Amino acid sequence: MSALVESYVAGGWFRAVDEGEAVLDAATGEVVAWVSSRGLDYGAMVTHAHEVGGPAIRSLTFHERAGLLKALAKHLGGAKDELYALSLRTGATQRDSMVDIDGGIGTLFSYASKGTRELPNDTVFLDGATERLGREGRFLGQHVYTSRPGVAVQINAFNFPVWGMLEKLAPAFLAGLPSIVKPASQTGYLTEAVVRLVVDSGILPEGSLQLVSGSAGTLLDELGEQDSVAFTGSAHTAGILRSHPSVLHRGVRLGVEADSLNCSILGPDVTTDDPEFELFVKGVVTEMTVKAGQKCTAIRRTLVPEAMADAVVEAITGRLAKVTVGNPAAEGVRMGPLASLAQRQEVRKAIEALRNSADVVFGDPDSVEVVDADPERGAFISPVLLRARPGAVEPHDVEAFGPVSTVLTYGSVDEAIALAARGRGSLVGSLVTHDPDVARQVTLGLAPWHGRILVLDRDDAPESTGHGSPLPMLVHGGPGRAGGGEELGGVRGVLHHMQRTAIQASPDMLTAITGRWTTGSQRTVEDVHPFRKSLAELRIGDSIESAPRQVTLADIDHFAEFTGDTFYAHTDPEAAAANPLFGGIVAHGYLVVSLAAGLFVQPDPGPVLANFGVDNLRFLTPVKADDTIRVTLTVKQITPRSSADYGEVRWDAVVTNQDDQPVATYDVLTLVAKTWPQEA
Amino acid sequence: MSALVESYVAGGWFRAVDEGEAVLDAATGEVVAWVSSRGLDYGAMVTHAHEVGGPAIRSLTFHERAGLLKALAKHLGGAKDELYALSLRTGATQRDSMVDIDGGIGTLFSYASKGTRELPNDTVFLDGATERLGREGRFLGQHVYTSRPGVAVQINAFNFPVWGMLEKLAPAFLAGLPSIVKPASQTGYLTEAVVRLVVDSGILPEGSLQLVSGSAGTLLDELGEQDSVAFTGSAHTAGILRSHPSVLHRGVRLGVEADSLNCSILGPDVTTDDPEFELFVKGVVTEMTVKAGQKCTAIRRTLVPEAMADAVVEAITGRLAKVTVGNPAAEGVRMGPLASLAQRQEVRKAIEALRNSADVVFGDPDSVEVVDADPERGAFISPVLLRARPGAVEPHDVEAFGPVSTVLTYGSVDEAIALAARGRGSLVGSLVTHDPDVARQVTLGLAPWHGRILVLDRDDAPESTGHGSPLPMLVHGGPGRAGGGEELGGVRGVLHHMQRTAIQASPDMLTAITGRWTTGSQRTVEDVHPFRKSLAELRIGDSIESAPRQVTLADIDHFAEFTGDTFYAHTDPEAAAANPLFGGIVAHGYLVVSLAAGLFVQPDPGPVLANFGVDNLRFLTPVKADDTIRVTLTVKQITPRSSADYGEVRWDAVVTNQDDQPVATYDVLTLVAKTWPQEA
Repeated sequence: MSALVESYVAGGWFRAVDEGEAVLDAATGEVVAWVSSRGLDYGAMVTHAHEVGGPAIRSLTFHERAGLLKALAKHLGGAKDELYALSLRTGATQRDSMVDIDGGIGTLFSYASKGTRELPNDTVFLDGATERLGREGRFLGQHVYTSRPGVAVQINAFNFPVWGMLEKLAPAFLAGLPSIVKPASQTGYLTEAVVRLVVDSGILPEGSLQLVSGSAGTLLDELGEQDSVAFTGSAHTAGILRSHPSVLHRGVRLGVEADSLNCSILGPDVTTDDPEFELFVKGVVTEMTVKAGQKCTAIRRTLVPEAMADAVVEAITGRLAKVTVGNPAAEGVRMGPLASLAQRQEVRKAIEALRNSADVVFGDPDSVEVVDADPERGAFISPVLLRARPGAVEPHDVEAFGPVSTVLTYGSVDEAIALAARGRGSLVGSLVTHDPDVARQVTLGLAPWHGRILVLDRDDAPESTGHGSPLPMLVHGGPGRAGGGEELGGVRGVLHHMQRTAIQASPDMLTAITGRWTTGSQRTVEDVHPFRKSLAELRIGDSIESAPRQVTLADIDHFAEFTGDTFYAHTDPEAAAANPLFGGIVAHGYLVVSLAAGLFVQPDPGPVLANFGVDNLRFLTPVKADDTIRVTLTVKQITPRSSADYGEVRWDAVVTNQDDQPVATYDVLTLVAKTWPQEA
Repeated sequence: MSALVESYVAGGWFRAVDEGEAVLDAATGEVVAWVSSRGLDYGAMVTHAHEVGGPAIRSLTFHERAGLLKALAKHLGGAKDELYALSLRTGATQRDSMVDIDGGIGTLFSYASKGTRELPNDTVFLDGATERLGREGRFLGQHVYTSRPGVAVQINAFNFPVWGMLEKLAPAFLAGLPSIVKPASQTGYLTEAVVRLVVDSGILPEGSLQLVSGSAGTLLDELGEQDSVAFTGSAHTAGILRSHPSVLHRGVRLGVEADSLNCSILGPDVTTDDPEFELFVKGVVTEMTVKAGQKCTAIRRTLVPEAMADAVVEAITGRLAKVTVGNPAAEGVRMGPLASLAQRQEVRKAIEALRNSADVVFGDPDSVEVVDADPERGAFISPVLLRARPGAVEPHDVEAFGPVSTVLTYGSVDEAIALAARGRGSLVGSLVTHDPDVARQVTLGLAPWHGRILVLDRDDAPESTGHGSPLPMLVHGGPGRAGGGEELGGVRGVLHHMQRTAIQASPDMLTAITGRWTTGSQRTVEDVHPFRKSLAELRIGDSIESAPRQVTLADIDHFAEFTGDTFYAHTDPEAAAANPLFGGIVAHGYLVVSLAAGLFVQPDPGPVLANFGVDNLRFLTPVKADDTIRVTLTVKQITPRSSADYGEVRWDAVVTNQDDQPVATYDVLTLVAKTWPQEA
């Protein structure tokens, strides 16, 4: 090591024209690397993303992009050892590295899975139902999400050099956007190593990912209306970014995820004998010590009922006393150093400020016993627990970005909610309680101030991922001080990168634009039954109009007897007549859809393999004895599965009666072979 | 008139301590009113919203809030004449006033309807499906939206003093937020008249709506993390608001809807003989003249194929020549004055700038013939059509906020898309074409740059609401220059005012917090069948576990014959064995759900009135001959309807086989009487 960390720019590795700044090993103080972006052509990066990376990604469907993310996750998974070794030098223990490295790779896997299961095998995402804008249904509205022809710039914090990049890359890539990553210089050598793995693998199209090692320079000046910046870091830097001319005047979208004064609340119902007490204490200690507390989601404020404060402090203190601090590579070390000596200075300053209204009850900010390391050359610090004095102000305002937490007390549940809100917006809050009423009251009270809330008790504890872990399927971000941004959350995080547009058009035009058949648009009725067509042959709008079938009273009677569904509306003329909605005997809804299937089915072995479900079934008009029904079935959406030799076909089904009134509408979901007869 | 326009502050009408500025009648130049906010206590307003209005609104369910919006819409509808009279003085013709006044009232009705149909009768909105976060299903995730304890400040433009307020009030109120309205002073007397109607009606809880007439003063300084500002106006002012300390550093959310250089594109397929030609020309002329072109959605750029430019200019010119300008109250007047003499100066200046690269082909910016008015005292101006010279720059950059549009030409469809994008983000674009391929290509090319796109042709024209009309059910806003905000769009506009939070909890806790039964949480099985319980008696989690039923080959045979669904997987053992998913005869999915209904139903007349639908039916495991099924039905969600003596009950249904494998899962939707026996 100790090389110059390079940038990846417009398809090639760029070496700065100077040596730049030295980055030190967090534990040993040795020089790990030098970092500089001097001489980098930021304009060329943005142009490369716009002209090479973006078009290449957007030529793929969501499913194809998901497939590449999965391949990339597997590839990185095979190179973990190399990353773990580098990660040690950032001060990370094995456990810390798992959060960063395995967590990042897991996020890729999760998005690969979500992209395949929850997005169409297409490039346009349809949002919500079609809106009828006129009486006759000739003028419709449909919201769609399309990819922006821009670039997603990410400016990341030093604490998660791997996860920080991958959790932003995955949703942006799925959305069709190339990324430019600008990691914090302190740990950017680890990000560089991952980018090298990504680039060398050749899995993502060229231009999908570029790297700025060193200063962001004029990067933001190069951005325009279709570009976005996702920032993770301090509220102070967030304020500077918000005032950048590109954001103020050129429509660059800025998402901020800032450190926040997250709290964990011990419910008023919990006694020291309850398992929740132990869970609470363990959670606080874990969040204080993982990554040496350098997590934007760590618990800075520990809120407990007044009567419980002594017991809580004692229990936390007891556990903290057993935490071994030292060289993260050494056996038995539970907590490594902070990322840098400068960080340690910051944390010590913050603790000083907290002491204005809180007392240190565990740990000495200026001294710590360390294993296998020099406590002065490495950025080591002891875990520090404080206990707030009445009326404390600083704990709600000052963040010590290290292994530091403050215990505060509350009286009523309402007071606990009010104290939590004094953080002015947090990424995450947790509540440890086994009382459902407390859970509802506190959670709904906290919710407007939080992006995520963990409710922990004996029931979910065995599977809980803990207070501090953002998950790819849940949103990450928070209001107010936490930055007001939102990332992850499965498909939600993808859509944040896309543009939502309301399209107003006729049914035919809407079908053409969206690639999904729209009620009211043309249907194709041919001699060949659409069940005889393979996925390759089926077309949107292919349709069958069935023969009619009369539904007799005998049919209804028989169905009731056969199925056991003898509900009075199907069996008792007098009682049925008194039903306010029917006014007489009606056919079972299940009878109607069963008969409809009999009317539309083509029975022979063929490309349609199975009916795997039904969506949005609504019974609109009762079917009375001797009514005659028929059904129209139309291909609405075709989704080939990349991992199987069949795909999904969604059919629009409308059952009508002899007066052409709609009796039932629903979507029929089938699996259809890609070719027929199937190839070997 | 000619009174001092007042503000409505903390439950009382506030009269400024000075006289303020005079506001002139747009057509006559007479003083209509005086306006000032001098001496207003902005802090008291925000406190009143936070402490009085917000809690009152949030004590209501979404349905109750929707009911109040409907009552308000009806009330305002009864006072339209008074508003129309005042509206004349802003320069609005009868047609213009309809857009503003009827459009505003229509938005209230639309939100009342959406709020009832698409939101629960509750205060929490659940977003998306429950996420399983652990293998055993003991740890789940659910996204919820909750109301923020803040205030929604709206800063509106002068052109829609009624609609501008109501389109922002309706979604904010549904979301649980009180509003403070700050209209533009030029037409704020009309807004004041509406606020008086609202306040005097007593329909909304006190504190729901306050009014600043005059300057916004220090209003923004009073806001914090839970508050939001929605601004409609110029990109310049938007930049200033974005740099406000409350936005930069205190997490105030700012939504911007700015004027944009919207375009309308004539498709390359359209000839002068096609009906689309006429539709295009008519659309341009309408957008130039309604509200004298003072609409943020007006067509500023008219994009046509080169070969069509002469014909288009001739046709538009011909129609513009017939537009009568004058006193909006006078018979036959189609276009009134601009809102003020200052506005006229602005428009003339913008036309001068446009002339750098375009020639005026219709109208004289400095002179116009008017009916029943003094052309100098009133802010009258002629419609002005320009034709761009090759390489024109200003038409993509300079907005003349009046009856002004510029014709530009394009070669290829790609060039049309590129020209549209030069507006750097627009609220709306329109495309007039009857070619589905053109529609798809252009619409998807425009979409990332637009909040709304109208595709107009002979098919949707009879019902089309036109290029310039935002609709309550469709999003309004646009990227880049258009401000990057999003309003309306039905429930989307409501959710923008709420906080999304990911809740992680056990199934039981999730049920308690959300009020919706969650898979895996406790069920209540009692002696009384839940179908015997009225809506008042039913509880979330009430459940029935049915008896078992064996499904025989005879049942399958019989069902096939009876329904006509003789699909080979149910009838032909050999062919069924070859099916890759079944490997043998399986029961029809419709048979399974029919038998399940027979197992869970309670047949006697009772509170359950009807099964009106089924959602999310998935067949998970095939049912083979002689398998034994049973079904568990559990109350998942209860939604009383305020307008009926029954409500909706959503039941979770799980059919399992003899090995306890899930065979089918779905939601059964029923209507259940509020009381039973029903009261007279």
